[in-house]
Order: sequence, then structure tokens, then C-alpha cells
Amino acid sequence: MNSTIDTILNHRSIRKFKNEPIKQGDLNLILEAATKGSTSSYMMAYSIISVTDPSIKKELAAITTQPYVEKNGHLFVFCADLNRNSIMATPEELNQMKDNLENTEHLLVATIDATISAQNAVIAAESLGIGICYIGSIRNNISKVDRLLKLPKNVIPLFGLVLGYPDHHPEIKPKLPIKALHFFDTYLDNKDIYPSIIAFDKQLNDYYSNRASNNRQDNWSNQMTRKLMSPTRMDVTQFVMSKGFRKK
Amino acid sequence: MNSTIDTILNHRSIRKFKNEPIKQGDLNLILEAATKGSTSSYMMAYSIISVTDPSIKKELAAITTQPYVEKNGHLFVFCADLNRNSIMATPEELNQMKDNLENTEHLLVATIDATISAQNAVIAAESLGIGICYIGSIRNNISKVDRLLKLPKNVIPLFGLVLGYPDHHPEIKPKLPIKALHFFDTYLDNKDIYPSIIAFDKQLNDYYSNRASNNRQDNWSNQMTRKLMSPTRMDVTQFVMSKGFRKK
Repeated sequence: MNSTIDTILNHRSIRKFKNEPIKQGDLNLILEAATKGSTSSYMMAYSIISVTDPSIKKELAAITTQPYVEKNGHLFVFCADLNRNSIMATPEELNQMKDNLENTEHLLVATIDATISAQNAVIAAESLGIGICYIGSIRNNISKVDRLLKLPKNVIPLFGLVLGYPDHHPEIKPKLPIKALHFFDTYLDNKDIYPSIIAFDKQLNDYYSNRASNNRQDNWSNQMTRKLMSPTRMDVTQFVMSKGFRKK
Repeated sequence: MNSTIDTILNHRSIRKFKNEPIKQGDLNLILEAATKGSTSSYMMAYSIISVTDPSIKKELAAITTQPYVEKNGHLFVFCADLNRNSIMATPEELNQMKDNLENTEHLLVATIDATISAQNAVIAAESLGIGICYIGSIRNNISKVDRLLKLPKNVIPLFGLVLGYPDHHPEIKPKLPIKALHFFDTYLDNKDIYPSIIAFDKQLNDYYSNRASNNRQDNWSNQMTRKLMSPTRMDVTQFVMSKGFRKK
């Protein structure tokens, strides 16, 4: 164990921040960290937008229905980006790239690159005592976020990341046990995964019934079933295709 | 600055490892770190496979054409996984989930979750003096990797991650400057990105011409253009669809 692993294991999402911007020196370190991670084939296929304009923050808070998207120390939006890799090409070269850029392979490359960058930023921030929350709900209206940030073709907004000095200290929420998430050599048969999930369901039901506020009877499987039965962001496919990704 | 940020900024991919397995205690910490990160809507939509069977490692080394995929301290494969979220559902419920699972939204969710997990593992490992390399080239033959690891429907292999005690100390390769990767409020016009890319091209050409071994004349834009003009892993789209992702 060391302080880095301690930081990682103590992660919890922070959703209430002091009214204080991130110190410029810390922000510089976080951006430095965000741009020094691994990248697929040297592509660096991501972009980071710092949203500082209050009117854009307000719109994003409305889209995500999360007030802390407006009230925080800093707000990033991470994007999958294949634009920068192709803008120096001639029109003829660009034409030859088309099928390749539209392959799902490159949607994966850019999504992985953007997330490596974001998670570097997260750990750097947390190591400085700054709290964070990923904001997947910018995809509630992904086309509008795209327009607000004026993203060109071959760039899509993936998620926001809010940062700030924590103004609450939530408990760490239980996670699935390692043996349900990690296997040796081959994937387990589902029947061999059930016991871990059933045990986790029981643990989570105990957690929900006993926690200080908002206690209820619920478990993970039921949550997942409810969630997946309810269609979510069904426009993302069309949007992603409209930006030149995953057509092929 | 602190030791965590120092670890992150000193990242370099390691491709030559001592013939020594990762200590069990360290491996446990790395897995702990890999399973404690943020996750979209509590889905934990990823799985980690430790590949220990020499015959599978050999096959993966052949697919990736990288000898260090066979010779290392430990090998993980990270997967996007929507199977675990849906296996407790009844057949009727599963039927109602179908469109939702097939939406590109959930391919993004699972890819992001898997990458957050992997990057936590990476930083935990590097903080322990262990070197790493992401192995995107398992997607050179993604169907075969899928069969080798016996992944069920709704699970796809995204990338490998090799870990081990470094047996070389490569230079840190230059990365695009922050001002080419990070913007304020809206994406820059391409004409305003060109100067940073041109400066980076020059920096990289100097780096390639002056480095100790394998020196050559080349730059980033030319590399990207060559790379994107050459069709890469064009079967990934069909494979991903065959596993129940991104059809809708």
C-alpha cells in the first residue's frame, strides 16, 4: 500500500462542492496528468473542453438535471476526437480514410483514449484533495451538448467531469466483489457468477436498509433490471453516426 | 506536485520485462484498485480476465505480434461487459432490454467503465514500480480472442494490459501540447489548431532524428495520415454487432 493506492481505494463521487474555483496551479497539474497517459497508436484521439462560460454551464446543468454541473470548482467535458488526426490530410487522403474512420474500431480507440485521459485527471485531482464526479448524463441530450461546445465532425462529447473542494463526505458505496468482476483465463459460466451476485444483492439490501438517510429495500440485480428495461438515450446511435463514427 | 502526480507524469509504456511474476500482494492491490473506480449508473459494466494459461498467452502473442504479451509478469484482458447486468432478468425482462442493450449508448458505457478500471490498475501498478503496456492489438483478431476467453454474448474484449518488472527504461515519448488537446468552452477552429500541430510535428521530427536508436525523418501528421489511410481492423464493427452491441 502507498498514498497513490490509498487515493484510488478511497474514491467516492462528490456531488456538493465549496464555492471555490480549483487553484490554477492544481488545474495545470491535473491537465498535465490528463495529457500524459497511454494512447492507442500515438493517436491521442481525445479532447478536453473546460467549460467556464456560465451560460453553457447552466445549459449543461439543465441537460444533466444535476445542480453540481453548474456549481463546482471546475467543469471538463471529455470528447472522443478523430478530427485532429485527420485535419492535416489532403482531401484525397481524407477520402481514403473515410471507411477506416467510420469503423467501430476507431470509436473504441477514441473512447478508450478519452477515458484514460479522464481517469488520469481524476486520480491527480483526488491526490490533491479535490473531489470529482463523472457526468454521463450529458448524453441525455448529446446533440445539444455537441452544438453548445461547437464540436466539429469526428468529435463527440462522451462525459463531463466536475471537480471541486468537497462540501460533504459521502460513504463509499459497496462495489461488486472482485470474484464477480475478475476471472482466470476464461469467462465463468453464468451459473458460477450467480452466487457472488446474490451475496452482493444481500449486502446492498442491508446497506440500503441501514444507511442514515434515504433508506429503502432494494438490491443491485433489481436496479439493473429496472434500468435496462427502460430505454435510455436511444438517440446516441444516430448522433454518433451523424458525426462520422461507427457507420461501417 | 506529489508522488501520485509524479507517477502519472512519469508514465512510459514498458515492452521488456524481467522474468518474474508480479508479487501476489501487489496483484491483489492492483485488482482492488481496478474495481473501486467510478462506474456509470452503478453498472460496473466491465470484466477483467487474468490470462495465466501459457497456451492462451501464446495465441494472444501471435495475434498481437508482440512477444511481451507472452513474456511478462502478468497479463490482463479488459472487457466491456453487459452480461452481468442482465443475467438475473427473466426471459420476458431480457426481451424488453434488447433495444436498450443494443444502443450505442451502452457500448460507450461499458467501454468507459472498462477503461476507468484499467487506468486505475495502471496507476496502482506504476506506483508499485511495475511497468505496463496497453495491448490494443488484441483487436487484430477480436473474434479469436473472444473465442479463446470464451466470452458470452454482451461481452467483448477491448484491450490487453501487460504488467511486469521493467527490464528497460525507455525515454518518455513527446505528447501533443496541452493547448492542442484542451480548449475553453468551444472547440477551436481547425485553422487555430494547425500551429500547435505544426510545432509538434517539428518537435517530433527532431526527436526522431536525434534519438539514440532507430532514428529517422518523420512527424506526427504524416504518421496519422499514413495510419488512417490504411484500413485497420475493419471486422470490429461486425464482431461488436454479433455480440449484441451497437445494432440500434
